[in-house]
Amino acid sequence: MTDNASSPTPLTLLGTGAMGTALARAWLAAGHPVTVWNRSRARAEPLAAEGAVVAGSVAEAVAANRLVIACLLDDASVGEALSDADLAGRDLVDLTTGTPGQGRARAAWAGERGARFLDAGIMAVPPMIGDPASGAYVLYSGSAELFEEHRATLAVPAGTRYVGTDPGHAALHDVALLSGMYGMFAGMTHAFALIRGEDIAPTEFAPLLVSWLTAMAPAALETAGKLESGDYTKDVVSNLAMQVAGSATLLRTAEEQGVSTELLTPFMNLMERRLAAGHGDEDTTGVVELLAVGAD
Amino acid sequence: MTDNASSPTPLTLLGTGAMGTALARAWLAAGHPVTVWNRSRARAEPLAAEGAVVAGSVAEAVAANRLVIACLLDDASVGEALSDADLAGRDLVDLTTGTPGQGRARAAWAGERGARFLDAGIMAVPPMIGDPASGAYVLYSGSAELFEEHRATLAVPAGTRYVGTDPGHAALHDVALLSGMYGMFAGMTHAFALIRGEDIAPTEFAPLLVSWLTAMAPAALETAGKLESGDYTKDVVSNLAMQVAGSATLLRTAEEQGVSTELLTPFMNLMERRLAAGHGDEDTTGVVELLAVGAD
Repeated sequence: MTDNASSPTPLTLLGTGAMGTALARAWLAAGHPVTVWNRSRARAEPLAAEGAVVAGSVAEAVAANRLVIACLLDDASVGEALSDADLAGRDLVDLTTGTPGQGRARAAWAGERGARFLDAGIMAVPPMIGDPASGAYVLYSGSAELFEEHRATLAVPAGTRYVGTDPGHAALHDVALLSGMYGMFAGMTHAFALIRGEDIAPTEFAPLLVSWLTAMAPAALETAGKLESGDYTKDVVSNLAMQVAGSATLLRTAEEQGVSTELLTPFMNLMERRLAAGHGDEDTTGVVELLAVGAD
Repeated sequence: MTDNASSPTPLTLLGTGAMGTALARAWLAAGHPVTVWNRSRARAEPLAAEGAVVAGSVAEAVAANRLVIACLLDDASVGEALSDADLAGRDLVDLTTGTPGQGRARAAWAGERGARFLDAGIMAVPPMIGDPASGAYVLYSGSAELFEEHRATLAVPAGTRYVGTDPGHAALHDVALLSGMYGMFAGMTHAFALIRGEDIAPTEFAPLLVSWLTAMAPAALETAGKLESGDYTKDVVSNLAMQVAGSATLLRTAEEQGVSTELLTPFMNLMERRLAAGHGDEDTTGVVELLAVGAD
């Protein structure tokens, strides 16, 4: 049975928090019959008025449809909610945020219960769901058969990206992207702290910051190329020796402005360690190696 | 005397390292008479073949033209190089990287010597100079008259952005943008470390990272708006309480992958401190306040 656009696939959605509700609305709007369940039923009820069937129990919700999508608080909630449900023959798609290890363990757990399993990581906040222009997408990994069969249904609320059969890889991509984003947020936070107290309007500075970060983001493509080739010195424009020398100005400016350097120093320290190890002609790629626990 | 496109302004450039050489070439290519000086003359000689006059001393170089541009190693080099030159009536543009405090002190120093002064921060690496498509630009602050008079000349090697009369503000913008970039680089480095050792090609992951960071960079515009309004709770999609809860998955994933959390924890710790202070309904904007030295 493959998704058929002329007859939208019915599905069950477990969890109607802000994200679950946004997902349910997108499927309902596209004509999919949707059965929902939520631990506190009151938060699921509003969806009934929009056409959803509100199930009284997880067992009932899972029994209603072959395609079961979980969007719960955390991985423990998934295990708990589904503990008494019969998953045999079901296609379980787990949109709940978790670690790669949790994704792999949950895949094994689902397999033992006779279900096909796809782990997922949602690269969006709820207001982006159901809006094709938002750029929202969901990373999937695990059963390729499940993904192919339900691809059209999964594509309704957001874009889809299948990243392989390892059920831990969706979460790994998800967490890696979010971790990269928090690094960027840390940098932005430091930048705003530097101009604070000066006669510089944050709203005039911010567009410069956005375009600068946008212009520099593609540096990740060069880093990736270097990681694959193993040669961290090829086509280096600004080498580590120059960057470490320049970082003194960044740290001194923070001191002048009365801003803590706690968000800057960890990366500067790693650049210095890599330089001290004799890699001054590389760019920053080699710092990746220093993050391996036990590396020196 | 204002820059005149039909008769390119002659100028003096002090410092012909990689950046100075790129700048000299751009001005020479645009027909500007260029006098260059470099501490080790051998590094300036190649420009003679391209039409530059190589001066034997800084005094000679400064005497040659009213517009004098310094692109040296650091602020101390500027003071040292120019110690014996007669700056009276000169327009000194300092492209040397430094702190806001150094920019202000150098402006006062130049004023005492009878020169108008403009401090500058170059948002580019040498290969971007002279290429209008590269997006390279230079931040300027200090004498508005100097900037207006030489605007066309300054615009030859890269775009120009004048950020005010405070001679410290070009360096402050420069350092704030670079600090934001290093935060992003730290995030990228952590992200690549997470996927290392997995069957995931860095060059397949990197485009996802670039588009995700590019999509999230405009968050700085919202942060700026919140900083100006003082209301950090308005239109918050993902609040601090949710983000701190979610950060546990990021930290746990790092542990699962054998990756040090040293680049992640400083920002996570600040989010937790802000949450503990009762700001769980804000987004991350309030973390800016915690960076003020002595804040709690």
